[in-house]
Amino acid sequence: MENQSPRLPEAMAVLVGHVGTARSIGVTGSPGVGKSTLVAALVGAYRDRGARVGVLAVDPSSPFTGGAVLGDRVRMQEHATDPGVFIRSMASRGHLGGLSWATPQALRVLDAAGFDVVVIETVGVGQSEVEVAGLADTTVVALAPGLGDGIQAAKAGVLEIADVFVVNKADRDGANQVVRDVTAMLRSAPTVPAPDSPGWTPPVLRTVAQTGDGVPALVDALDAHADWLTTSGRLVERRRQQARAEVEALAQADFVRAALSALTEEGVDALAEDVAAGRLDPYTAAARMLSACRDAQSV
Amino acid sequence: MENQSPRLPEAMAVLVGHVGTARSIGVTGSPGVGKSTLVAALVGAYRDRGARVGVLAVDPSSPFTGGAVLGDRVRMQEHATDPGVFIRSMASRGHLGGLSWATPQALRVLDAAGFDVVVIETVGVGQSEVEVAGLADTTVVALAPGLGDGIQAAKAGVLEIADVFVVNKADRDGANQVVRDVTAMLRSAPTVPAPDSPGWTPPVLRTVAQTGDGVPALVDALDAHADWLTTSGRLVERRRQQARAEVEALAQADFVRAALSALTEEGVDALAEDVAAGRLDPYTAAARMLSACRDAQSV
Repeated sequence: MENQSPRLPEAMAVLVGHVGTARSIGVTGSPGVGKSTLVAALVGAYRDRGARVGVLAVDPSSPFTGGAVLGDRVRMQEHATDPGVFIRSMASRGHLGGLSWATPQALRVLDAAGFDVVVIETVGVGQSEVEVAGLADTTVVALAPGLGDGIQAAKAGVLEIADVFVVNKADRDGANQVVRDVTAMLRSAPTVPAPDSPGWTPPVLRTVAQTGDGVPALVDALDAHADWLTTSGRLVERRRQQARAEVEALAQADFVRAALSALTEEGVDALAEDVAAGRLDPYTAAARMLSACRDAQSV
Repeated sequence: MENQSPRLPEAMAVLVGHVGTARSIGVTGSPGVGKSTLVAALVGAYRDRGARVGVLAVDPSSPFTGGAVLGDRVRMQEHATDPGVFIRSMASRGHLGGLSWATPQALRVLDAAGFDVVVIETVGVGQSEVEVAGLADTTVVALAPGLGDGIQAAKAGVLEIADVFVVNKADRDGANQVVRDVTAMLRSAPTVPAPDSPGWTPPVLRTVAQTGDGVPALVDALDAHADWLTTSGRLVERRRQQARAEVEALAQADFVRAALSALTEEGVDALAEDVAAGRLDPYTAAARMLSACRDAQSV
């Protein structure tokens, strides 16, 4: 799938009818909040209940994808040898929105393969935090004391995407302040509960993922959110939105491929060169791509 | 422009022939490295030379866009009242790749308006750091001691995008270690100098942006890179790539709009619902969007 095999559409067609049972949980937050340790703790908690757990790490700073604090690696290692756990790091880069099309498809594969819970870990700054909210049934925003930026990032937009807030490293100085800040933000936000989430106010929990403190309460909150999604009918709506984002991303990639094949690489480069040189405006160039793609079909 | 006025294409057409003289400098890095202070220091340095400077902040944790450390705000305030400086925060979120189409157009507007230097500040984690490299002529990757994740993020991909490394807060403990780590990474990386940048090895500089220490050397390095871009012919190539990414993003947005108008919102939602419910695979759904868009034209 990650190699974008030409037989991928065929594989996805085979999975039709075998998806829709896995729960997806997004975990996002700035580097340094301990997301990976938190994910490892969640994996352990769900394994204790007998669930099969998939982990998709789309965080470039994640130990799963690259450099790591040794402790985290060791911590995850125990899960790496557990046949009930599948861990995969996904490249978050690449053309045509890598995250937006590859992650939902990886989720679909794990879902069809019988995983009960799939945890998607992304770094929560900027665009990607919005994307993870579009991928997962439930989005956990992780914060930690001592990273002034946590709150700033929070202000910038996580209020709109968090179903559950976790203040991790809650045994450190400043944890209470982070909890107070987030709680105050939630109280004063005009959009909480969010217009599309009547009846759900994100809880603000404390964890020390390294020791497991607070993790059972987090699992309870995730269960409560899953129940709310089902009973409120929001699950159907969220999954439709997820699918729509995925289909649009795939259609856009198809479109660019079709336009490239109609115009040729050289033709597209020539358009780009005209724009760069100030001979053509980008909208006219874009319109030519669209009409080339359409004409190719009509011929 | 940010409101996506329907007259935007017309405005962009007017700018044709008036662009291409501004230098763009991307500054990226994790939250906490002091990007904004560094940007403010750069603005000061270019102002001292008499250059008009634009700043586009697409960092959700930036003081320009939201919450701020008071010191940073005060520091930037002096520039805010300077008619030779234009500062604009850009929303990094939104459908259809906000950053990818809006930022190059803002850059084009500032370029046509006679700004000599445009600094684009983005938070450097994940996708956005790759995007900024696609936007700017020269990309500065800022790191700082005491943020273990800096190096991890660096490992994950900044090697490929950095034209200049800056270790900011270089008066703090651990700065030497960060410099050593990055230098070692650069030495061992098979891709440095990058295949597309023969003859340019990214320097690793130290700054204390708050005091201005090291900023003149940074400006010198930026000048050296600008010279190299011109003499090596890479500038033309980079700008063509920038324009191509922008045109493709606009064409993709056009395509989705055309597909939506052909299929209707309800039609696209129905496709998404079929995918979500496991009745249809996403590739078939995407293919239907593409063919609906084409058919609409042929009618």
